[in-house]
Amino acid sequence: MAFQAEPYARKVFYYETDRMSIVHHSNYIRWFEESRLDFMRQAGLPYEAIEREGILMPVTDVAAKFLSSSRYGDTVLIQPAMTAFNGVRASFRYEVRLPDGKLLATGTSGHCFLDERTRVPLNLKKRDPASYELLRRLTEPDGAQAGKEEDKR
Amino acid sequence: MAFQAEPYARKVFYYETDRMSIVHHSNYIRWFEESRLDFMRQAGLPYEAIEREGILMPVTDVAAKFLSSSRYGDTVLIQPAMTAFNGVRASFRYEVRLPDGKLLATGTSGHCFLDERTRVPLNLKKRDPASYELLRRLTEPDGAQAGKEEDKR
Amino acid sequence: MAFQAEPYARKVFYYETDRMSIVHHSNYIRWFEESRLDFMRQAGLPYEAIEREGILMPVTDVAAKFLSSSRYGDTVLIQPAMTAFNGVRASFRYEVRLPDGKLLATGTSGHCFLDERTRVPLNLKKRDPASYELLRRLTEPDGAQAGKEEDKR
Amino acid sequence: MAFQAEPYARKVFYYETDRMSIVHHSNYIRWFEESRLDFMRQAGLPYEAIEREGILMPVTDVAAKFLSSSRYGDTVLIQPAMTAFNGVRASFRYEVRLPDGKLLATGTSGHCFLDERTRVPLNLKKRDPASYELLRRLTEPDGAQAGKEEDKR
Repeated sequence: MAFQAEPYARKVFYYETDRMSIVHHSNYIRWFEESRLDFMRQAGLPYEAIEREGILMPVTDVAAKFLSSSRYGDTVLIQPAMTAFNGVRASFRYEVRLPDGKLLATGTSGHCFLDERTRVPLNLKKRDPASYELLRRLTEPDGAQAGKEEDKR
Repeated sequence: MAFQAEPYARKVFYYETDRMSIVHHSNYIRWFEESRLDFMRQAGLPYEAIEREGILMPVTDVAAKFLSSSRYGDTVLIQPAMTAFNGVRASFRYEVRLPDGKLLATGTSGHCFLDERTRVPLNLKKRDPASYELLRRLTEPDGAQAGKEEDKR
Repeated sequence: MAFQAEPYARKVFYYETDRMSIVHHSNYIRWFEESRLDFMRQAGLPYEAIEREGILMPVTDVAAKFLSSSRYGDTVLIQPAMTAFNGVRASFRYEVRLPDGKLLATGTSGHCFLDERTRVPLNLKKRDPASYELLRRLTEPDGAQAGKEEDKR
Repeated sequence: MAFQAEPYARKVFYYETDRMSIVHHSNYIRWFEESRLDFMRQAGLPYEAIEREGILMPVTDVAAKFLSSSRYGDTVLIQPAMTAFNGVRASFRYEVRLPDGKLLATGTSGHCFLDERTRVPLNLKKRDPASYELLRRLTEPDGAQAGKEEDKR
């Protein structure tokens, strides 16, 4: 079974609101990142450890749907999950909720792995087998398989 | 034929870079907004005029694909286009390029229209017919039709 | 004696770093705000309660000195204190430290109180005596006096 | 006479506003940076050229006073000037105005020069004499002298 991280709790900051009195949508993209890095830390593979190995994990795509708005004074709970991983690419999805369970937003992100110096894509299975094995175990049931399929295209 | 706006030219700001030495991906979502509002201004319907009518145009969804990175010192050109509009919803797409034509990112955004006070969705055709007619003319060839189709679902 | 709030602990977010690999200095100004609002919440006067009364508390001045840098992976502790308050103006100071006590930055901010609708300055003592009394008790020993002096000029 | 740069014109971005409907104060600190780097570019010494020499120019202190607010739809004009420079430290001041001349904010920033690799302070006069001479000529009448005085303390 996939690793189930604790949801990431985050107070809304005043400067994240805009003149509609709600949180500006771009901040949800930043919250996804905060929750993804918290997920990796919970799983025992903090992102700073990956960067210390000279590996970067940039975002290749991101998407979000906004169902309801959040405001200053709210605490939001962001639940990330790793949906696919094959050593070359990784995918996450996210749900942002209020503490009462109300769904505010959903989203996804895709990632690759790069050598920090050359910025050339790398296969984590070859470059850092220990991190590869750890991340594989974090993926949802059919995620590793899905990742392989996706990579064949 | 659809309205063709001038691309929106934007220097990369130093504070938009992150410790990968490239622009953080969340800023592209902000650039999409900058270019969308510039597009509306060019078209003769500045967003502040819409808000003065008590109408908000929030983002309901956003997506981006990142193909190559931008850095401090770059000027990027963002070309927005309105892909659908039916008075209830509006859709845009975006291309971010370097001045030499190199494609850095593509994206889309979806929007609805709300009454500022009640935050209830509204139909721009009824609430503000002049703005409705203006926005209709900005849509790409089959956009108005596509918008109608999408709304039936 | 003045109210002593718990320091505000904050993880550095990846997107707060810049291409120098350190946190961009503008984010410290945002951290000051986060810690100030946390201070008010701890003191029993959450800022959203003030805004519900139709009162705004904008920043009239801000300053920071940067002694050492913070990085992704750090948790910083921000200790705010209210240094002056007289109903018309309020002043805070801030210290940002690493958990080992190393001082990263110091700062100050000044504030006034405005009516949300008219944007005219107001005296909290007249407009909201309960909040006035509460804030007075949060001020450091000679703060209330200092505030009065400052206001005479 | 000191170098007089063209003021830096900047449209307010929607996401820079907060729920007070005005630009969040932290963005002025970012505007100071934008205008400072524009000033250096105008003067013939773009900051990316300094970084290419392996030199960083971090902010050691920053301050701002906010006199009036700006809103979405505004274009602000930021006039930077270099007030002191001695090869070890540099100081700037800033004025933010509306096009009609109304003063919105004033500010200052201080800077040192660091070796990018070692992060040790350096003297630009020794490390990069050409940039040193260029920056010296940008300083206001008594700036070079003032800078020397400050450095003796």
